[in-house]
Amino acid sequence: MDMTVVSHGNILPPLTDILPDPRTLMGPGPSNVHPRVLGAMAQPTVGHLDPTFQQLMEEIKQGLRYAFQTKNALTFPVSAPGSAGMEMCFANLMEAGDKVIVARNGVFGARMLENVTRFGGIPVDISFGWGTAIDPNRIEQALKDHPDAKILAFVHAETSTGVLSDAESLCALAQAHDCLTIVDAVTSLGGVPVKVDDWGIDAVYSGSQKCLSCPPGLSPVSFSDRAIARLRARTTPVPSWFLDLTLVMDYWDGAGGRTYHHTAPVNAMYALYESLLLLQAEGLERAWTRHRVQHENLVAGLEELGLSLPVDPAVRLPQLNLVTIPDGKDDGAVRAALLSEYGLEIGAGLGTFAGKAWRIGLMGHTARPENVAICLKALSYALSR
Amino acid sequence: MDMTVVSHGNILPPLTDILPDPRTLMGPGPSNVHPRVLGAMAQPTVGHLDPTFQQLMEEIKQGLRYAFQTKNALTFPVSAPGSAGMEMCFANLMEAGDKVIVARNGVFGARMLENVTRFGGIPVDISFGWGTAIDPNRIEQALKDHPDAKILAFVHAETSTGVLSDAESLCALAQAHDCLTIVDAVTSLGGVPVKVDDWGIDAVYSGSQKCLSCPPGLSPVSFSDRAIARLRARTTPVPSWFLDLTLVMDYWDGAGGRTYHHTAPVNAMYALYESLLLLQAEGLERAWTRHRVQHENLVAGLEELGLSLPVDPAVRLPQLNLVTIPDGKDDGAVRAALLSEYGLEIGAGLGTFAGKAWRIGLMGHTARPENVAICLKALSYALSR
Repeated sequence: MDMTVVSHGNILPPLTDILPDPRTLMGPGPSNVHPRVLGAMAQPTVGHLDPTFQQLMEEIKQGLRYAFQTKNALTFPVSAPGSAGMEMCFANLMEAGDKVIVARNGVFGARMLENVTRFGGIPVDISFGWGTAIDPNRIEQALKDHPDAKILAFVHAETSTGVLSDAESLCALAQAHDCLTIVDAVTSLGGVPVKVDDWGIDAVYSGSQKCLSCPPGLSPVSFSDRAIARLRARTTPVPSWFLDLTLVMDYWDGAGGRTYHHTAPVNAMYALYESLLLLQAEGLERAWTRHRVQHENLVAGLEELGLSLPVDPAVRLPQLNLVTIPDGKDDGAVRAALLSEYGLEIGAGLGTFAGKAWRIGLMGHTARPENVAICLKALSYALSR
Repeated sequence: MDMTVVSHGNILPPLTDILPDPRTLMGPGPSNVHPRVLGAMAQPTVGHLDPTFQQLMEEIKQGLRYAFQTKNALTFPVSAPGSAGMEMCFANLMEAGDKVIVARNGVFGARMLENVTRFGGIPVDISFGWGTAIDPNRIEQALKDHPDAKILAFVHAETSTGVLSDAESLCALAQAHDCLTIVDAVTSLGGVPVKVDDWGIDAVYSGSQKCLSCPPGLSPVSFSDRAIARLRARTTPVPSWFLDLTLVMDYWDGAGGRTYHHTAPVNAMYALYESLLLLQAEGLERAWTRHRVQHENLVAGLEELGLSLPVDPAVRLPQLNLVTIPDGKDDGAVRAALLSEYGLEIGAGLGTFAGKAWRIGLMGHTARPENVAICLKALSYALSR
């Protein structure tokens, strides 16, 4: 065997030479991670088939059921980011030729459409203006116009615009028309009420790095019995091995012994678990209230600075605030100043808001008065230059 | 909005009540993680679009190019476990109707076949006995028999049996027959030579949790220019949004500014980077030699204990050792004793070796004399009971 090795062109610098001083993360996610969650992540790795890890998997399922307000047995974190959670929902619940109504009011609704198309579905694209909520009346009409639609898919909290849609009403309409629902709760989970059982959501996915305040990398999901029945009734194989729920179920389900599927990201699961402990300790109602109060606190301060928020107050997401960039101010220069002078990250606008608005996140552990104070002071500085 | 919350049925215990004392991980992966890597993982999270994180992405690509011994521009970690890395290779390089030769000598070759089938390919299944290497002569014959085959796929180091196949010869054959290669280097990377450029591998995937000694969750991949040309020549969309290389490339490529695709698992990337620093500091040749020396050390000790290794010494993987369970010894009872008395994890057999052999890993940071000593002493104890 030839053991010759081609050496590096350059020597890698130490990680500490690359990483900045801790940031205040007020963009669209990741949010600030609680030190306890970081500490959990650094615990020694155990095997993914270790009995203690299997107990941890059970506890994580239990913690996620609380976060999602569900009794769904099939509630677990996908071992990949939220976009893989989205893809798992579409890959498993629809088959080629299925008609899927997608209510689209931003980037992530558009990604849902892309999923439908790639899996050979027939998308019904019901689009809404950027920065507006999904109108249940138009969805009801679409359900009437397309009685053969099998799924209604929509984003509960559009991260690209900071808009909250009425998931409860949309799910009720879907049920009345015998449609399953796929709901994106990436930014909503933990920040505003998400009630999987009460609202009758069939498939929901979220992300670890938003209001759960974990590092990014995991996508909590939950599936109703109706969703599982649809999966069982498939006549074609799931078009992905990695995301095939029938296989993943055997891995996450303790009953009858676990079947190896993939190697779970063990340390990321430690972090998620710790964040679920923190959520349990605080309580969902208090977490929701904290997000709302800090949002009000932020909005009051922004308005004092003369800034305006383009989203209708009735549908504003507390955890993601779209803020109009004042005339004459340079988007990139202001964000660069916030980052370099205050270590503060806020998000750029997307779509029709690119260059026209910022997205200020107040997600999870970030939603605290000290961060609102930093943000307002830093913006005041950056805008006065 | 109804703020009523259904409380937990049970209260989650602290993480420290669940986790065991640190394990010695000598199964098929994850391997022991160096404390420096765990420490890196616990550094404060930065935004995935932060300029410092973008620098880190560039350094990670550089470190992976060294590990893979390649100059391939498209070399990066997939934000999901090795099985997603596998799926990315098949989803992007093959189209429905393509003929793919799969050399199968264990669990992971079988998973490759499954990928071909799910993406609508025509698999040519060339199977070899469990515990044997892939015979290049039979692959050459298959290439002659199937001149229309577009891809040859095989596992370099079969984790299910501890067998190393001759990737260099197999890739040369594929090239002679104008086939692309997809190579599983999940268990080989960092433990034995993997020379992507010298051998002319077109697509390769690995895992973070084997000889790189990282926590599980990431899949380093690398693609040749030939592979990218095949991707560019597709006539159908990649059947996955999350794994679509054309989109992921725009995210991982610094040239012309990055396009948001998904949120990278920031802290997992810290860990991978630190492990690449450790690999650089040690040097690939020394890492390969260390694995081989500790393997010889382990084998000598196992033979002293009267244990035998069913795999031909010529094709044994240093980092994964298949060991025959002695007659009359109970597989599960021995492994349980190792775990409870010595905190030692070894792997169960798979396939035809289920209940008949153990898999003892010596991967990455685990491949050290002290761990061989623990393993031999613990086995001696458990087998004498």
